[in-house]
Amino acid sequence: MIEAPIRSSLLERLSAVLGDKGLITDARDIAPWLTDWRGRYHGAAQAMVAPANAHELAQIVRIAAQTGTAIVPQGGNSGMVGGATPDQSGAALLLSTRRMNVIRAIDGQARNVIAEAGVVLQTLHEAVAAKGLRFPLTLGGKGSATIGGLVSTNAGGTQVLRHGTMRALVEGIEAVLPDGSLYQGLVTLKKDNRGYDLKHLLIGAEGTLGIVTAATLKLVPALIDRAVVWAGLESPLAARQLLLFLEDCAGHEMEGFEIVPQRCLTNVLRHVPGTRAPLSGAHRWHVLVELVRDNPSAAQPAERAEALMAQALERGLIEDAAISASEAQAGAFWKLRDSISEAERAEGPAMQHDISVPVADMARFIIEAGAKVEARFAGTEVAAYGHLGDGNVHFHVAAPKSADVSAWPATPGKAISAFVHDLVVEAGGSISAEHGIGQMKRDELARLGDPARMAALTAIKRALDPKGIMNPGKLIAL
Amino acid sequence: MIEAPIRSSLLERLSAVLGDKGLITDARDIAPWLTDWRGRYHGAAQAMVAPANAHELAQIVRIAAQTGTAIVPQGGNSGMVGGATPDQSGAALLLSTRRMNVIRAIDGQARNVIAEAGVVLQTLHEAVAAKGLRFPLTLGGKGSATIGGLVSTNAGGTQVLRHGTMRALVEGIEAVLPDGSLYQGLVTLKKDNRGYDLKHLLIGAEGTLGIVTAATLKLVPALIDRAVVWAGLESPLAARQLLLFLEDCAGHEMEGFEIVPQRCLTNVLRHVPGTRAPLSGAHRWHVLVELVRDNPSAAQPAERAEALMAQALERGLIEDAAISASEAQAGAFWKLRDSISEAERAEGPAMQHDISVPVADMARFIIEAGAKVEARFAGTEVAAYGHLGDGNVHFHVAAPKSADVSAWPATPGKAISAFVHDLVVEAGGSISAEHGIGQMKRDELARLGDPARMAALTAIKRALDPKGIMNPGKLIAL
Repeated sequence: MIEAPIRSSLLERLSAVLGDKGLITDARDIAPWLTDWRGRYHGAAQAMVAPANAHELAQIVRIAAQTGTAIVPQGGNSGMVGGATPDQSGAALLLSTRRMNVIRAIDGQARNVIAEAGVVLQTLHEAVAAKGLRFPLTLGGKGSATIGGLVSTNAGGTQVLRHGTMRALVEGIEAVLPDGSLYQGLVTLKKDNRGYDLKHLLIGAEGTLGIVTAATLKLVPALIDRAVVWAGLESPLAARQLLLFLEDCAGHEMEGFEIVPQRCLTNVLRHVPGTRAPLSGAHRWHVLVELVRDNPSAAQPAERAEALMAQALERGLIEDAAISASEAQAGAFWKLRDSISEAERAEGPAMQHDISVPVADMARFIIEAGAKVEARFAGTEVAAYGHLGDGNVHFHVAAPKSADVSAWPATPGKAISAFVHDLVVEAGGSISAEHGIGQMKRDELARLGDPARMAALTAIKRALDPKGIMNPGKLIAL
Repeated sequence: MIEAPIRSSLLERLSAVLGDKGLITDARDIAPWLTDWRGRYHGAAQAMVAPANAHELAQIVRIAAQTGTAIVPQGGNSGMVGGATPDQSGAALLLSTRRMNVIRAIDGQARNVIAEAGVVLQTLHEAVAAKGLRFPLTLGGKGSATIGGLVSTNAGGTQVLRHGTMRALVEGIEAVLPDGSLYQGLVTLKKDNRGYDLKHLLIGAEGTLGIVTAATLKLVPALIDRAVVWAGLESPLAARQLLLFLEDCAGHEMEGFEIVPQRCLTNVLRHVPGTRAPLSGAHRWHVLVELVRDNPSAAQPAERAEALMAQALERGLIEDAAISASEAQAGAFWKLRDSISEAERAEGPAMQHDISVPVADMARFIIEAGAKVEARFAGTEVAAYGHLGDGNVHFHVAAPKSADVSAWPATPGKAISAFVHDLVVEAGGSISAEHGIGQMKRDELARLGDPARMAALTAIKRALDPKGIMNPGKLIAL
C-alpha cells in the first residue's frame, strides 16, 4: 500500500495532467471496472485514469514510473483471463482507454485504418464499411472489445482461417513504453529491417511491456455476399477431411470452419429461445462453414456451396447439409454456434480450456483427449467445439450431474484443467490459443512453458519494465 | 585479446565438443570467411566452429558464455552489411552453420518444411520442388544464402509483393539463446497466445539475440507457368498507377513489380554480354511485372498479361509492352533486372541505399529525392530501381565522371548517404528495407532511430545477452 501523503501527492500530479474528466476517484464510478466480465476476478484501485490522448498517457506513465505505481490498462473489460483486473491491494491505477477513441484516418488506397486504443470493434467495423471496406476480425464481444485490447491480446475470433489473428492485421503501432516514452510506429512499411520488431513484441504482451495507444490496421474489400453451410457428419476426422477438401477447392473463399458436437447443439436448442436445428436427421457431429465473395467476378457463394456440398456428399465426407438461403438464415446458423458457451453454462459448471494443437492433429486430439479425460474423471462429459480450421477448440469438461456445483470448479476442477493442459503440451500445443494468459493461466504457463523461452520472456519483462509497473501479476510472475 | 592459457583451454574445451571436423584453427582455412562478399569488411577470429547440430552448438554457446567469448554466426557469407564478419580483435569465434544442413521434414498436407540453418536456399527450392511445392522467397544469392541467415536478416527478394518477406514465411523457430539454452519452437500452431513472441524477436535480429538453428517454413503450390512483362512508361508516377491497376485486377496473380530507369537499362545493355532491349522504342522508365499461375483452373498468365497490358495501353498507363513468349524470354527479362547492380558497378563508384517508404509515396520520393540529391551534390546521378510494389528501391547515387574513384566513397560519399537517409526518415521510411543493419548501418541507425525504440532495443539486447557475446558490434553498439 502507498502511504497517504505520497498518495494524495500522486493524485494531485495526475489531476494536473488529466483534469476532471480524466481522473476518477469516486469508488462508485470505479467499481464496475474492478471485476472481470466473467465475474471471477475482483480487484481494487486507488483511482481510474482516462487520458484523452497518448501524450497525456505518456505523462501519466512517467509519474507512475517515478512513484513506482502500478498501471492496469483496460479496454472493453471483455477479456477472458482476468488480464485487465487489478490485484486487491488497491495500489494500482486503473487505466481506461475509453477517451482515446478517435479513428484518425481511413486510407482506401493503401487499405488501412489508424484507430486509437479505445475504439470499439463494432464502431470500427461500421466506420470502414461506410467506405466500402472491411476490417475482417470479429468476435462475440465486438460491441465492447476495443482495438487496444484486441492488439494487446492478439485476438482471434471466427474469421482467422482466412485473415489470421490480430497479429496478421496490425501494420503499425503507437505505444507508451514503461519509461513514459512514446513509440511512434504507425507508418506502414512493407519492408523494414532496422532491428528487433517492437510491434510484434507488443502484440499479445497484454499491457505488460507498455500500453498500445493506436494501431494501423489492414483492411480488405467489403463482402458482397456469403453462404453459411451447416453440415452433419460422423466424426471430427470426417470434419478434418472436409476441411482439407474445401481448402483445396475453395481456399480463398472460406472464412470460417467451425466444429460442433451434437451435445452442444442439443444444449443450445434446449436453452436458447428461438433456435432450431438446421438438419432434420441426427448426426454425431456438425460443422459450420462460411463461404464469401468480395470480388464481383467470383462465383456466387451459395452456388459454390451447393456444388461443393454435393461433391462432399458423394465422397462420403458429410451425411447431410443445409445452405443458408438468406442473410437471416446465415445469421441463424451462426447463432447456434455463438450460443454454445451460454447454453453450456446453463447446463451446469464446466472447466473451459482455450487450446490449440497443430491443425492436422486436432481432430484426433478431440477424440483421444476427450476419452482420456472422461475415463480419468468419472461422470464428466467433454464438449470440444470451435475453430477446427485453426487447430483451436474450446475444450469444455462438464461436471457430473451429481457434482456439488460450488465446490466442483476447485476440486476436482483444477486437477482436470491441469490434466487437460498436460495433454495439450504433450501434443505440442498451446494452453492459450486465443484468450491470452492474464492472471488465470499465469501459473499454468510457468509450470508448463519451455524453460528457455520462459527465461527469455522474464528477462524481456525485467528489461523493459524494470520497476514492474506495467500490468503487474499478469502473464509472468516476477 | 584473450590470454594464451585461457585461449588454449578454450580451444581444448571446444575441441572436446566438436571433434576434428567441427573445429577449424588453421588460419588458411578460416581466411576466406573473414571478409564479407562485397570485400568491404575484414575481420579476424581465433577459430571457426562448425557444430554438427543444435545440441553441439548449445554446448559451444555455454562455453562461450562462461568464458565471455564472442560468437559471430555466418551462413553463406552473402550479406550486404558486414553482419557476418567479426571485428579485427581476433577474439571472436566464427560460427559456420554449414554442417547443420539437414532438411528434417517436408509436410505436403500442412504445406511446410523444417530446414536447418545451414541449408542453402537453392537446395531447399529443389527439395520442395521435388514434392510439387515451392518455397516462394528467392533472391540473387540463392546459391549461397542459407536459411539461418535469411531468417536472421528477415530477407526480402523479388517475390515479396505476393508472399511477404521471410517473416511472413517462418512458422516456427529453433534457436540457441545466449545462455546456451535451446529454444524449441518448431511446432506450427495457427493460434498461440502464450506471451511475447520470441519467434518474431529472433527474425531479423542478425544473430545478436541468439542463433537460429532451424526453422519451419511455409510452402505454397508449385507454379504451373508464368509470364513476364517488360513495359516502357513515362515516369514512376505512371508505374504507380499501373501497379494500382494490376493490384485491383490481378492481385493474386502478381508476384513481382519492379521499376527500372532508362539509365540502368542502358548500363546493363552496355556492360552485360548477351543482353538486349525488350522494346524497340525509347522510354524514360520501365517496369517488369511477373504474373503467375499455381492453380490449374486459373487463367493462363500470358493471356492475362496480354489482356491487362492492352487495357493499360488504352488507359495511357504504359507506352509499350513486351510479354515473354517462353521461359527463356522470361529469364532474359529478369536477367536485365538482376544485372543492374553489376552494370552500375562497372560504370564507377556509387553510394548504394536500400531504402523503403510507404508504398503509395515511393514514386514521388524517387523523383523528388533524386532531384534533391543531384542538386545538392553536383555531377552525381541518381538511379533508383527495384521493388516499387513493396515501397522499396535501391537508391544509387553514382559519382561524377570526374570523381577520384578511391576517395569519393568517403568524401563526399558518406555525406551523400547521410543526406539520403535524412530524406528517407523525413518521409517516414526505413534506412534498411531488406539488407539489415550489420556493422555498415549501425551508426546511422543510432543517429536516426526513434529514441524510444532504440532504448527498448538496447534494453532487450542487454537483457537477453548480458555478456554481449552474440555477434557483438552489429545492429546496436553497447
